Amino acid sequence: MSKIITISREFGSGGRELGKRLAEELGIPCYDYQIIEMVAEKQGLDKDYVENAAERDIRAFYPTTIGVRFSASTFFINQSVELFTEQTKVIRELASKGDCVIVGRCADVLLNNEQLLNIFVYADKESKIKRCKERAKPGEVLTDKEIEKKMKEIDKGRADLRKMLADTAWGDKAGYHLMINTSGKEIKSLIPGLAEYVRAYFNEV
Amino acid sequence: MSKIITISREFGSGGRELGKRLAEELGIPCYDYQIIEMVAEKQGLDKDYVENAAERDIRAFYPTTIGVRFSASTFFINQSVELFTEQTKVIRELASKGDCVIVGRCADVLLNNEQLLNIFVYADKESKIKRCKERAKPGEVLTDKEIEKKMKEIDKGRADLRKMLADTAWGDKAGYHLMINTSGKEIKSLIPGLAEYVRAYFNEV
Repeated sequence: MSKIITISREFGSGGRELGKRLAEELGIPCYDYQIIEMVAEKQGLDKDYVENAAERDIRAFYPTTIGVRFSASTFFINQSVELFTEQTKVIRELASKGDCVIVGRCADVLLNNEQLLNIFVYADKESKIKRCKERAKPGEVLTDKEIEKKMKEIDKGRADLRKMLADTAWGDKAGYHLMINTSGKEIKSLIPGLAEYVRAYFNEV
Repeated sequence: MSKIITISREFGSGGRELGKRLAEELGIPCYDYQIIEMVAEKQGLDKDYVENAAERDIRAFYPTTIGVRFSASTFFINQSVELFTEQTKVIRELASKGDCVIVGRCADVLLNNEQLLNIFVYADKESKIKRCKERAKPGEVLTDKEIEKKMKEIDKGRADLRKMLADTAWGDKAGYHLMINTSGKEIKSLIPGLAEYVRAYFNEV
């Protein structure tokens, strides 16, 4: 049975970096954007389209039935569901290959035949805004207010998606095995200790 | 500046054991019931009385003023406040002596001149009931329902007390640096990794 570390995270908390560095330290693969790429390839679709569709448009499907929304756009709803199903398959396929870290994509709730360590990464608002500024794409200049708005929107999307899939709310400690506050911390500095914790958690020490 | 690890915990989650074992692993003292003993000694009072008064009766004092409650029992209110003040002093005194682990007693919100790593320990209901049964005092036989009731009461007391002292709610991730879910885990097995995490957190690695 594979040992899978899933990373859920608040936007700007450094969860993606934490997942990547943790995987490196443990010598196992980290899957993140590759999942989208694999789904896009399998479906012959554009990556950006898949990224949006798989996580955002699926919400249009719930909680009403296809019947009720039939008049809207059956094509897009069906495609969203298809993409989400494909994403789930890809995640399960990757997980079955062996130990790994999976960032986002609701892997924590979509996997059920593996040993899971579900980590939630969060931070205070100031730290997240600071991190977003440091990681801004070239030419991207957002004010603090704009960053805050973006953070809220993205986190709301994540929370909404999880609501449809899990019993526990996004960010509610009951749904995770470890919650890490990265406020004011260099992600790098947390990794050696975290890797030890993960090894011990899976009884490998 | 001392490095202080505070442990807040759900009743039955193994937080006390985690604090004790972590301190041993780090080679630093762990303060728990000793704080009560010190307060009791300083005030010439019974330990059990102090334990209840310092954490429970203080609530009678808030959020109304002494004036409003004057007709009730000024003696007990004053004594509760005095004991709580003494407890705060003892915690600050211990913290100023050097690195340590402090279990409970709201140390996470009462300390402000130290480097803090505030840990919250929690678990699912089944794990907590199981742990309570395993740790029952000789002759103590409680049903699952009774244990659950006790857990709820004690945790409510902790939550209520914190509400008066801090901006963030008891158990709300925003108030802690690390949240550890002990469900189905031997506390002992988590310690080596956790100790590494703590060392890295304080940049000692």
